[in-house]
Amino acid sequence: MTTEVSTSTEVSMQAIEAQLAELKTRIDVLDKKSTEDKVSMIVFSGDLDKILASFVIATGSVAMGMEAVMFFTFWGTPVLRDKKKQVGGKDTIGKMFGKMLPTGTGDVKLSKMNMGGMGTAMMKALMKKKNVASLEQMLAMAEELDVKIYVCEMSMDLMGFKREEMIDYKGLTFCGVAKFLEEAKNSRIQLFI
Amino acid sequence: MTTEVSTSTEVSMQAIEAQLAELKTRIDVLDKKSTEDKVSMIVFSGDLDKILASFVIATGSVAMGMEAVMFFTFWGTPVLRDKKKQVGGKDTIGKMFGKMLPTGTGDVKLSKMNMGGMGTAMMKALMKKKNVASLEQMLAMAEELDVKIYVCEMSMDLMGFKREEMIDYKGLTFCGVAKFLEEAKNSRIQLFI
Amino acid sequence: MTTEVSTSTEVSMQAIEAQLAELKTRIDVLDKKSTEDKVSMIVFSGDLDKILASFVIATGSVAMGMEAVMFFTFWGTPVLRDKKKQVGGKDTIGKMFGKMLPTGTGDVKLSKMNMGGMGTAMMKALMKKKNVASLEQMLAMAEELDVKIYVCEMSMDLMGFKREEMIDYKGLTFCGVAKFLEEAKNSRIQLFI
Repeated sequence: MTTEVSTSTEVSMQAIEAQLAELKTRIDVLDKKSTEDKVSMIVFSGDLDKILASFVIATGSVAMGMEAVMFFTFWGTPVLRDKKKQVGGKDTIGKMFGKMLPTGTGDVKLSKMNMGGMGTAMMKALMKKKNVASLEQMLAMAEELDVKIYVCEMSMDLMGFKREEMIDYKGLTFCGVAKFLEEAKNSRIQLFI
Repeated sequence: MTTEVSTSTEVSMQAIEAQLAELKTRIDVLDKKSTEDKVSMIVFSGDLDKILASFVIATGSVAMGMEAVMFFTFWGTPVLRDKKKQVGGKDTIGKMFGKMLPTGTGDVKLSKMNMGGMGTAMMKALMKKKNVASLEQMLAMAEELDVKIYVCEMSMDLMGFKREEMIDYKGLTFCGVAKFLEEAKNSRIQLFI
Repeated sequence: MTTEVSTSTEVSMQAIEAQLAELKTRIDVLDKKSTEDKVSMIVFSGDLDKILASFVIATGSVAMGMEAVMFFTFWGTPVLRDKKKQVGGKDTIGKMFGKMLPTGTGDVKLSKMNMGGMGTAMMKALMKKKNVASLEQMLAMAEELDVKIYVCEMSMDLMGFKREEMIDYKGLTFCGVAKFLEEAKNSRIQLFI
């Protein structure tokens, strides 16, 4: 009788091994689908209020133990220009864009109630009074917190911006939308701002 | 011979237990990463059209068996002010913001084609004619459906709004971005509107 | 003694079967919560720049092996009208909206620096020079790549648009927000544009 039991045990054993393998395969699939504690943002807008919001979210995410990735594209791109850097050798359209678009964080306007700059100035004064970090401080904080900044190459090219005129920022990377989508795909949170 | 089998069975048994434990650990990790049937929205915009969209998404999500969370920030904040509530004791800038920003849902304008209010009035008339719920009805519906509303404390502070001037809404909570990110992290869908 | 071993083996076997069943149940739950390699976008804006961004993301996602779904609503809806299709039988408001809103991709303006159409024309010239696909080319590419396009029925109704005046696009579907949320719920990435 013991032999019988042993045989049936062996059979069950094989069945169990098979089940284990199946569960393992299913977990492997789920593993590939699972995301990381990461927030990925497309910073499309170049408005002071929306840029501020994106940095509040980025730094807040890191404070909560998440990674943060910001992909600056279109109107968001000129916000990362460095006022102190002058670059020559641009064609006519490049020069035009260069003048019309804001040069860095100090030049950015509110999306509403700008009122010829008065609303923006008022908001900045208010932020100072209320101890809300300025865009410049936010950027420095983000750099310290290892917030990753990607800059859209297509936007750079369209607007005639050169890499040499962008801010110094640890780990700033110039890339295409594919690189961003890769990050976003593995992120818990994705936002288009 | 049966003893031999038994011994090898015991060995396999231990191997299986080890595998089971490993799978369990991996499932625990995946569990922590998994999200809930929840939609989390940052309502940043204060435009009639975008606010409407956010409520259509919120109520539609609940109708589909999901939870919905709305985090009102920046221009979205004044939309939740109650026209009937007057609050004193504001400083000059607080009073200015109070007057310039919309007071509640009835005061909100289209992001485009507002045309001095004509476009907005036309859209409202059209919505009525087409049996699309108004913003006021949407808000009531959201409350009934237990849509959670968070109001950004930093925006309240910046714009000089007081809690006493906000609408009565079941479970309305004043909080910071961290609270929202916590919800968003566990949500299937996140949107910045 | 062998019998004893066998009995204890049987007991362990039952314990293992129970554990396997429990893990399977937990994996089933995770399976239901897991998402597909899909990007779902709400295309709310009708601006040239944002529409372009949404198509760059859609086609880029497919290129990376993901599915892409675009839900055109509100100001995004008129972008899908076909200039060559004329439709009669509209009421006064329908006719007004018909004239005021853009008719198709060729009629769409930049969200900023439009400058009476000059900025938009300049951007289009620039895109051509830099070999960035135009909106018309993007749309054709999206169709070829099986990007799914949904059109919001409520927006169609509000703006008085008729199905007969929309573009020919393989698999274009008219639907409500619920259909979109269903897709978004199972998507890795969701964006409100």
